Amino acid sequence: MLTFHHAPWSRSSSILWLLEELGVDYRIEIVDVRGEDGAPESYRAIHPHKKVPAIDHDNTIVTERAAISIYLGDVFAEAGLAPAIGDPRRATYLKWLVYADSVFDPAVAARVHGLVYGSNDYSFGTFDDMVNHVDRHLSQNDYVCGDDFTAADIQLGAAIGYTMDMMKVLPERPAFRAYLARTGARPAAKAAAAKDQEMAMRIPFFQKQFAER
Amino acid sequence: MLTFHHAPWSRSSSILWLLEELGVDYRIEIVDVRGEDGAPESYRAIHPHKKVPAIDHDNTIVTERAAISIYLGDVFAEAGLAPAIGDPRRATYLKWLVYADSVFDPAVAARVHGLVYGSNDYSFGTFDDMVNHVDRHLSQNDYVCGDDFTAADIQLGAAIGYTMDMMKVLPERPAFRAYLARTGARPAAKAAAAKDQEMAMRIPFFQKQFAER
Ligand SMILES: N[C@@H](CCC(=O)N[C@@H](CS)C(=O)NCC(=O)O)C(=O)O
Ligand SMILES: N[C@@H](CCC(=O)N[C@@H](CS)C(=O)NCC(=O)O)C(=O)O
Repeated sequence: MLTFHHAPWSRSSSILWLLEELGVDYRIEIVDVRGEDGAPESYRAIHPHKKVPAIDHDNTIVTERAAISIYLGDVFAEAGLAPAIGDPRRATYLKWLVYADSVFDPAVAARVHGLVYGSNDYSFGTFDDMVNHVDRHLSQNDYVCGDDFTAADIQLGAAIGYTMDMMKVLPERPAFRAYLARTGARPAAKAAAAKDQEMAMRIPFFQKQFAER
Repeated sequence: MLTFHHAPWSRSSSILWLLEELGVDYRIEIVDVRGEDGAPESYRAIHPHKKVPAIDHDNTIVTERAAISIYLGDVFAEAGLAPAIGDPRRATYLKWLVYADSVFDPAVAARVHGLVYGSNDYSFGTFDDMVNHVDRHLSQNDYVCGDDFTAADIQLGAAIGYTMDMMKVLPERPAFRAYLARTGARPAAKAAAAKDQEMAMRIPFFQKQFAER
């Protein structure tokens, strides 16, 4: 049994995409993270910071997008989204999944908030180093691991799409644009986007935003 | 062939401890991250942010502590530091490794720098939620995965030791103290600490600090 704790149009949307790529059965529990004090306190038993995403797989809870991706990619290995242990591409795969969470995301947030710091101060390093690194890698490789799409491309693709097109924080770069076109064209990416939009439209927070336009 | 790019008494010291626990052969390359502009620009080919740690295993480079830990724990499975795929403890194992990098570390850095933010703003959430979560987990479990020490305890133990005892940012909690005693008593932890100190004492940056006392 796979339960997915989700808030539409949030960081957990990347896990919705992953679940669609895996082609497994799952049940969605919508978490209202957008209320005054965030999700209800009872949800803390699932996620220590009351955030989404969280996965419950046969009564084992997994949080943190990189951990969820690594976990599900290996458990449902037949989907072919995770290089196996011993495959030389696994190092790159793991590095980029962790990097998306522990470097890309905090560096973007720091940028958005105008946080100024020495390169050394924070474990996530500078925004510019991050942008140049991602750009260099995607200029030389179609996907994170070279020629083949993996679960790492879901996290990196979702992160680039969100921060470049929605937040307008990540600069436009040809390599980012081409990568979004490649990853976004996948049937599972489109299916996830459609499901997410449908769920979002049932949530008062977004209904109100759209009504006000 | 395993090469470890390391700076003594830094975040990479936790990977030194991991290598000692694994009991494998490795070669250390000291990286001078403490110069004016950090490590030499040539090192960027190894680490995109010129940080440590980095691992070169048979010409495959791995960066990010969580990724390095997951990678090495699985490749050297006979050391028994990583619950295998299919083991229900693997979810908890992966979650805590990622959490140490993407939540614990940025939350501590934000605290040190006096960064004030809404709980929602940063993917790493609040310092207090983090402290309470770690405290609750270690009050109920001897180790990250319950009764057995894993590579996740190396990262969490190193992080708690460094931030509670050296930086004095993490509050004193009985569960943290007991956990440090348990994990720090391991022969590999002691061997790593001794090697690290010996290396540190050969570095001008630390020689100068000690001479000034
Ligand atoms: N480190 C977490 C970050 C998750 C996260 O920041 N989720 C946001 C959604 S965009 C959230 O739930 N925010 C609600 C809140 O913090 O109250 C991960 O990678 O899974
Ligand atoms: N996200 C990295 C963080 C590594 C990191 O922050 N390393 C510090 C050592 S304490 C460093 O190399 N700083 C030197 C610099 O940034 O110039 C990881 O988890 O491996």
